[in-house]
Amino acid sequence: MDLTKLLKPKSVAVIGASEKEGFGGDVCRNILSYMEDRSHVYFIHPKRDQVFGVPCYKSVTDVPESVDLMVICTSQKTVIPLLREGAAKGCGGAVVFASGYGEVGTDQGRANEKELMETAKELGIAVMGPNCAGFVNYVDNVQAFAFISDKRDRKGSVGVVSQSGQLCLSLMDCPGMRFSYSISAGNGKIVQMEDYMDFLVEDENTKVVSIYIEGVKNADKFAAVLKKAADRRKPVVILKAGRSAKGGAIAASHTGSLSGSDASFDAVLKKFGAIRVDDLEELMAMSLMLSTLKQMPKQATFASMNLSGGETGICADVGSLNGIEYPDFTEETLASLKAQLPSYASPNNPLDMTASLSYDADLYAGALRTVMDDPNIGMVLIGYTLLLEIADPAIHYMYEGIEKVVKEKGENCKPIAMIPFAENTRNAEYQEKLFNMGVPVLPPTVYAFKILRRLADFISYTPENKSLSLAVGQKKSGETYALSEHDSKKELGAYGVPVPKEVIVTSAEEAAEFAKDTEEALVMKVESADILHKSDVGGVKLNIHGSCEAVRAYNDIMESVTSKRPDAKINGILTVPMLKSGVEMIIGVNNDPQFGPMVMVGMGGVFVELFKDVALYPAPISKAEALDMLRSLKSFKLLNGYRGGKKCDIDALCDTIVSIADFASANRDTLKELDINPLFVYPEGEGVGVADALVVKYGSREESRL
Amino acid sequence: MDLTKLLKPKSVAVIGASEKEGFGGDVCRNILSYMEDRSHVYFIHPKRDQVFGVPCYKSVTDVPESVDLMVICTSQKTVIPLLREGAAKGCGGAVVFASGYGEVGTDQGRANEKELMETAKELGIAVMGPNCAGFVNYVDNVQAFAFISDKRDRKGSVGVVSQSGQLCLSLMDCPGMRFSYSISAGNGKIVQMEDYMDFLVEDENTKVVSIYIEGVKNADKFAAVLKKAADRRKPVVILKAGRSAKGGAIAASHTGSLSGSDASFDAVLKKFGAIRVDDLEELMAMSLMLSTLKQMPKQATFASMNLSGGETGICADVGSLNGIEYPDFTEETLASLKAQLPSYASPNNPLDMTASLSYDADLYAGALRTVMDDPNIGMVLIGYTLLLEIADPAIHYMYEGIEKVVKEKGENCKPIAMIPFAENTRNAEYQEKLFNMGVPVLPPTVYAFKILRRLADFISYTPENKSLSLAVGQKKSGETYALSEHDSKKELGAYGVPVPKEVIVTSAEEAAEFAKDTEEALVMKVESADILHKSDVGGVKLNIHGSCEAVRAYNDIMESVTSKRPDAKINGILTVPMLKSGVEMIIGVNNDPQFGPMVMVGMGGVFVELFKDVALYPAPISKAEALDMLRSLKSFKLLNGYRGGKKCDIDALCDTIVSIADFASANRDTLKELDINPLFVYPEGEGVGVADALVVKYGSREESRL
Repeated sequence: MDLTKLLKPKSVAVIGASEKEGFGGDVCRNILSYMEDRSHVYFIHPKRDQVFGVPCYKSVTDVPESVDLMVICTSQKTVIPLLREGAAKGCGGAVVFASGYGEVGTDQGRANEKELMETAKELGIAVMGPNCAGFVNYVDNVQAFAFISDKRDRKGSVGVVSQSGQLCLSLMDCPGMRFSYSISAGNGKIVQMEDYMDFLVEDENTKVVSIYIEGVKNADKFAAVLKKAADRRKPVVILKAGRSAKGGAIAASHTGSLSGSDASFDAVLKKFGAIRVDDLEELMAMSLMLSTLKQMPKQATFASMNLSGGETGICADVGSLNGIEYPDFTEETLASLKAQLPSYASPNNPLDMTASLSYDADLYAGALRTVMDDPNIGMVLIGYTLLLEIADPAIHYMYEGIEKVVKEKGENCKPIAMIPFAENTRNAEYQEKLFNMGVPVLPPTVYAFKILRRLADFISYTPENKSLSLAVGQKKSGETYALSEHDSKKELGAYGVPVPKEVIVTSAEEAAEFAKDTEEALVMKVESADILHKSDVGGVKLNIHGSCEAVRAYNDIMESVTSKRPDAKINGILTVPMLKSGVEMIIGVNNDPQFGPMVMVGMGGVFVELFKDVALYPAPISKAEALDMLRSLKSFKLLNGYRGGKKCDIDALCDTIVSIADFASANRDTLKELDINPLFVYPEGEGVGVADALVVKYGSREESRL
Repeated sequence: MDLTKLLKPKSVAVIGASEKEGFGGDVCRNILSYMEDRSHVYFIHPKRDQVFGVPCYKSVTDVPESVDLMVICTSQKTVIPLLREGAAKGCGGAVVFASGYGEVGTDQGRANEKELMETAKELGIAVMGPNCAGFVNYVDNVQAFAFISDKRDRKGSVGVVSQSGQLCLSLMDCPGMRFSYSISAGNGKIVQMEDYMDFLVEDENTKVVSIYIEGVKNADKFAAVLKKAADRRKPVVILKAGRSAKGGAIAASHTGSLSGSDASFDAVLKKFGAIRVDDLEELMAMSLMLSTLKQMPKQATFASMNLSGGETGICADVGSLNGIEYPDFTEETLASLKAQLPSYASPNNPLDMTASLSYDADLYAGALRTVMDDPNIGMVLIGYTLLLEIADPAIHYMYEGIEKVVKEKGENCKPIAMIPFAENTRNAEYQEKLFNMGVPVLPPTVYAFKILRRLADFISYTPENKSLSLAVGQKKSGETYALSEHDSKKELGAYGVPVPKEVIVTSAEEAAEFAKDTEEALVMKVESADILHKSDVGGVKLNIHGSCEAVRAYNDIMESVTSKRPDAKINGILTVPMLKSGVEMIIGVNNDPQFGPMVMVGMGGVFVELFKDVALYPAPISKAEALDMLRSLKSFKLLNGYRGGKKCDIDALCDTIVSIADFASANRDTLKELDINPLFVYPEGEGVGVADALVVKYGSREESRL
């Protein structure tokens, strides 16, 4: 959808311009306070000659030029006629603040929303909202926002889209935050979140795309936008409630749409390298950091420099808890620091420089330069609280020291961030000075190291070896049917999953024949879609050697099953070589209604159940992605030569995961779920073995045979 | 140590009073700016007649009354003579700002510190520091602090002691923080952290004790103070670096003292119900919340009330991630909320009230009252960001609504906290109004729910069923020796640990005799302190039935061992009934050099190794504590009837843990470590079985036999 007329209008009409409190008044006040060039802004009110001294037009029709954007401040009932009137004036975008649509949950509301969607589509108008707070375009200075804000320069490079007006306000209130666009999307069913995201990913003035989303509406579009961002290495930071059961229920009820599982959403973001955050403060801090840094670190390694042992210890602890890598300094760095620091300091990373450094800008700059020059270090973290009530002369010297190094290094300056130990925006003056220098002041340590961890993940992400697509199928529901074990394996085998050589024998002779040619012991199981619990009816025999035993087993099973289940249609007896035992894994697939097949890998037994030690990833899956999945398991060690044992055939296991994902992708429209349990993994070079498999599909067995 | 003259002096002499920048000048400035009654404050300078217009005395000796406290602003060299002079004037407390002591890490520094310690002891003077920033007593308005602060009322009920001056400054800079005492302890070797803590636990004006500590110096005293606090239910909030390996190394190097393991420290705090936090922001927020709330919640259950779906979702998610319990509302509450909220709101906990509630104080108060009256709810969390730059009229109505309910409920008002979604202190005016009403404004959600989790733990803690002591032994190091399996079991058996009936037989006849009387199969193992790897020399036989097999096994083992290890002293052959298999556990004890024996319990196998699923707790251990340890394991389900299996004999397992802790406590001076691996746990009523045990003690085997 083209959002140019909506978000970058050449002319704007404010419908319902007013001096009162409320949408009309607030939009006008914002326009008057922020937009100096109002030559293409038109206030419209049928009964007023002027608003705040600005002449008013009676209607859009009266405006002396074509109108790109209508900001509709009037009530729900007026909207459709206004859109029609605007369309005649060339209008291609509209902001609708009014509520009374889908969000109220009534039949009337839903009908109103449907009518609005249809009209917008018919007229080709990109409608923001309804039930939104509007937007500000800071790049071209366009105000279409319904809440008054204190005047300060907020122009920057963070592009925000939020499905919650309230969260949008908090973002705009954040000291230091600077935006390219700030958009409150409201119900977002006409212009959707995915459209706004696409616009911001494309937009050159937007360095960071910052999103609060309640649920994805168009998974294909969502994936395409994330792929575009991944290819351009443009960070997309996403806040979405629903991690917990309660949060998921709230998100679902609020959007009124069935959302896919939160775990799937998470896995999708991981695939595309988008950054997920847990709350609003993190969304702000992450966006602020990414937009402030003049360049990304070249490596995800950090140095921490502090003025006291206590602060150094906190950075070591909270950093380590978040998996921050503090490499050792080189010998040269250590020697140089020893020469610069007081004799009682013991240089190390994290570094306690001692307070004495904070009273001399040159000394401080020297230590900072030395640390920055260390080839092991990608980014420097300066631990310091910008105090306000307590007079601390250190602040001036430190600032000067940092400034020296930043200026001297120019474009080669490695990224620096300041980590305070108490809230970050207290001392606005120094905070702003540092921001302007490209040094973000992060929130206190728990937040700071969370976002640094995400930064490390972001710069370590490589789009090159990822399969940047999803296998989104048609949404299915209703009747399902299970394939028999043999059929399940056959389907998997066709995609390269190493299933055992097995046959269905329909006579004692066939059983004898197969047994004669097979070295391993056999398992024989009755093959019938009607019998789910084979053992209960004497339908399973294990450890069968040679033709004689096979004949006996065949006859025993047939006799037992036909007497106990005379009703069942028996296809024959599945005869399969017994697999030798190996490391047990479980591989499953669930076809997420929104994002398509999600592949789950875990170690068999209690690992999955008690420790939730599983990896989830959307199909299709490349081999590199399969290996990443395995590596993310805590129990990965059990595959990788645990306690001096043999290494498992991880290569074959990765191939198998890729094949399973291929099978799932190909069956995206029909697959409900797949369970391989157990899958045995053998020592290096010896492959894997599927001991049991169950495919469940949508539809009926009969249909599938047509 | 009596700290009255130090912290609550009746008269104060400032030695080195000055108008310059530095200790002397800053202390004087603080005194003049904060202390209105200076009738017992004396400025001392040998060469000045007055400082800031206040007459000066040449020396302490000249002061016309006795001097309780000397604030020594002069250099290290002057301190000892000053203390002697002060002692003659009745001085019982001194603040020493000077550095040049242990902290510089030189021989001279250490010698200076030793001399200071000895002199202080000799003269009976409680010395704060050296190398400290001093203190403020806000209760009696005594200023002995070396950093200038903006004047505002900081008098409150948080008692702070910090081993880092820098962190102390940040705490004092925190808007809203209000103190009874703020103490920078410096090197803290004379008056120690434990002494200050004791003072604050005893102090009636201190509601919350708030500590930054680098390491415990006196574990017995530390435990005694924590016990006192636990008995009085006075919260002690502790920040200590060292959770991570890097953090631990920094803490150790900075204090210059061997600290016990961080895991032990953590376990000790858990035993006494002290609250450990991860960083400074959390220390502040936790202290601020505890001091602001007029009463503790009666139950650790929360209601979350918000104005938007997005914010509700964040509270649901971040709360759940932190284990916050949001019980369902009762039917009455739901019905009442439905009547009060807009038709499209779906009442639930967390509750999205919708923004409409925020524009009507009565409506808001009504919903708050309804939620608070729900018997399932212990505390109400109001989600709302106090904006500053963005005009949001909601703030006034909400405040009014809250005020209504707080006033109306009076002493029966359940605790309320406000949770902002962006930083908390931006809007100082409303923040302060809410604080004064007993409603703390917490930091944003990640911090907020971390501290609410700790609050829930604090109020759920019950000192009654805890063994509020530690088994601190004499510090041992050097030579160690292992007891044989039989001796290890014998020692444990004496404390009630259920070890199997086993004998050491020294002849084939004895073996036959024992076998004849034993129903179970036997294991026979050579018993020799000289042979560590018994299987390697043919020293183990399993699954022996009856006398004949026992005789043969005896002879086989003897023959094999004597031929392969002719040098070994053989005590005989350990003959023991084979234990039937059960759920495998590992129980270990490590004697922490600082806190005494720490008991570790975990499930056998990879659970301990890969998932670190262990519980650690200091001996002695009560039965309730043992059960808490087991319950804290993720693998606890495996003991408690996993997948429809039998419940294990948890009662017997708890008894065994108690007995092991008793054994460890009794051996606190000699035990190095103990390993029971595996311990089999049998179904309910069938007890546990120790399959192997190894006790290692300090000293030499020979000594132990004396």
